[in-house]
Amino acid sequence: MSALVVGSVALDTVITPFGRADDVLGGSASFFSVAARLFTPVNLVAVVGDDFPKEHIAMFQARGIDTTGLTVTKGRTFRWAGEYGFDLNSRETLDTQLNVFADFDPVIPMAYRQPRFLFLANIDPGLQRRVLDQVERPEMVLMDTMNFWIERSRESLMETLRRVDLVFLNDGETRELTGESNLIKAARAVLTMGPSIVVVKKGEHGSILFTRDFTFSAPAYPIERLFDPTGAGDTFAGGFVGHLASCKDVTEAELRRAVVTGTVMASFAVESFSLDRLAGATKEEVADRIREIKQLSDFVPA
Amino acid sequence: MSALVVGSVALDTVITPFGRADDVLGGSASFFSVAARLFTPVNLVAVVGDDFPKEHIAMFQARGIDTTGLTVTKGRTFRWAGEYGFDLNSRETLDTQLNVFADFDPVIPMAYRQPRFLFLANIDPGLQRRVLDQVERPEMVLMDTMNFWIERSRESLMETLRRVDLVFLNDGETRELTGESNLIKAARAVLTMGPSIVVVKKGEHGSILFTRDFTFSAPAYPIERLFDPTGAGDTFAGGFVGHLASCKDVTEAELRRAVVTGTVMASFAVESFSLDRLAGATKEEVADRIREIKQLSDFVPA
Repeated sequence: MSALVVGSVALDTVITPFGRADDVLGGSASFFSVAARLFTPVNLVAVVGDDFPKEHIAMFQARGIDTTGLTVTKGRTFRWAGEYGFDLNSRETLDTQLNVFADFDPVIPMAYRQPRFLFLANIDPGLQRRVLDQVERPEMVLMDTMNFWIERSRESLMETLRRVDLVFLNDGETRELTGESNLIKAARAVLTMGPSIVVVKKGEHGSILFTRDFTFSAPAYPIERLFDPTGAGDTFAGGFVGHLASCKDVTEAELRRAVVTGTVMASFAVESFSLDRLAGATKEEVADRIREIKQLSDFVPA
Repeated sequence: MSALVVGSVALDTVITPFGRADDVLGGSASFFSVAARLFTPVNLVAVVGDDFPKEHIAMFQARGIDTTGLTVTKGRTFRWAGEYGFDLNSRETLDTQLNVFADFDPVIPMAYRQPRFLFLANIDPGLQRRVLDQVERPEMVLMDTMNFWIERSRESLMETLRRVDLVFLNDGETRELTGESNLIKAARAVLTMGPSIVVVKKGEHGSILFTRDFTFSAPAYPIERLFDPTGAGDTFAGGFVGHLASCKDVTEAELRRAVVTGTVMASFAVESFSLDRLAGATKEEVADRIREIKQLSDFVPA
């Protein structure tokens, strides 16, 4: 089994300077799965209500994503509504209705319990550990989180951090988690909390991967038609895990390529509302953009 | 003649979370010259008052900088005082005393009038053109500016932009100059205003060079002991111009190396107050950090 993701599948209402989309497919596990499936088999664990459009489940399945773990339960699907400002850097949450997600207590199907890679998307850190308790030790456990858990469930978050190999954070979260304003020092401080790898995502400024042995910095893919940033982080994680799962071994060179693959997948996600553009991305398009990023960042020291 | 810089030489008072420094050497032309001189002969045009410490002039001269164009005039030297916030990203100007700089009307010594590279540091765009009128067309004219001129002297700034080959801007200035929030689109818009090269400096997020033919993105050098960001931009320009001036031709490969050289020089500038660290940087240290940035940003597409 290659990649297992546990997270949210949601219906999003998104308002951007370019328009709005109502009740479209969203959620961390959706973006992650649709990015990762281009490279590896994906098993998805999440919960939706009985109002969830069947076409979305069909879309997952058509892309080879195993939805055995997608529970459909009585009630309404998790809904989120948000509005982005002029430059798409600031976001205001207009509405959050947890609905069936409020009682989410992930049960990992027997067939999923030996994942090679496990991605714990942004959910309660206590739930993240309940997932960990149900699986055989994967080759790599990766987690996401958010400021909400850093502020409200710090102890629990620290307990989960001690059990993962890699954590994805944005720059603000990295500083908040460590109380250190210098991003380099902050990331190194996270490396003392459990994970042996920290990936700091900086949006339009790219991302940096830190280990105790090396650091890798990648620029963002230059997007002129940034349309909707929703899901970019989870899509990055999907490309990252997808690439690693397609490799025999996790080496430094593959970790570097994984960052660039995540960068490229995220670039598709932000070019449309929901997963419209991402779901149509091909491996050829991915390879093209990876080459573009190489061109963008390459130089020869004298 | 290799590189000519016209700008300010000042006495700065700087307050950071780590301490304060009073009346220390600063100014755009100072940082530029001390960075560029590591690679090329530098001619400096600026004005100081008769209170300017002779030891600073001796420091310039000891580093091979030609100070024939540094006018010492009756009065007080330009003074600036500023305070940086907790994370060193925000800066408040506490005091600006233009003093002798208020009447600065640069006269370029005859021996300086055939520069191969001309850097017009951040001064009134009208004065920048008066410099251009005094020199034979250099191989490359580079300019800096700031939000003050974008807001107060837009017409004059546009006129100067039409006469230069390269403009250095930070990301905020790029957006303000063009009214375009997407940084990529904004930089491309600047390319229609005259310059054939735009370098967007993003502080801790690195920098991006745009031409009509290619784009190059470089990360910042990872600084754990960021001490005082004053002068980083002018130091970047000094390393950039210095590197190009050391090359026979300005090629794409050399422009990429110039960005990385600028990045490295700026990393020395921010490690101390004033030019203390920068003035002691050696070519070996520069080469080491260039190799580190290569390691930091290198990957092999699959």
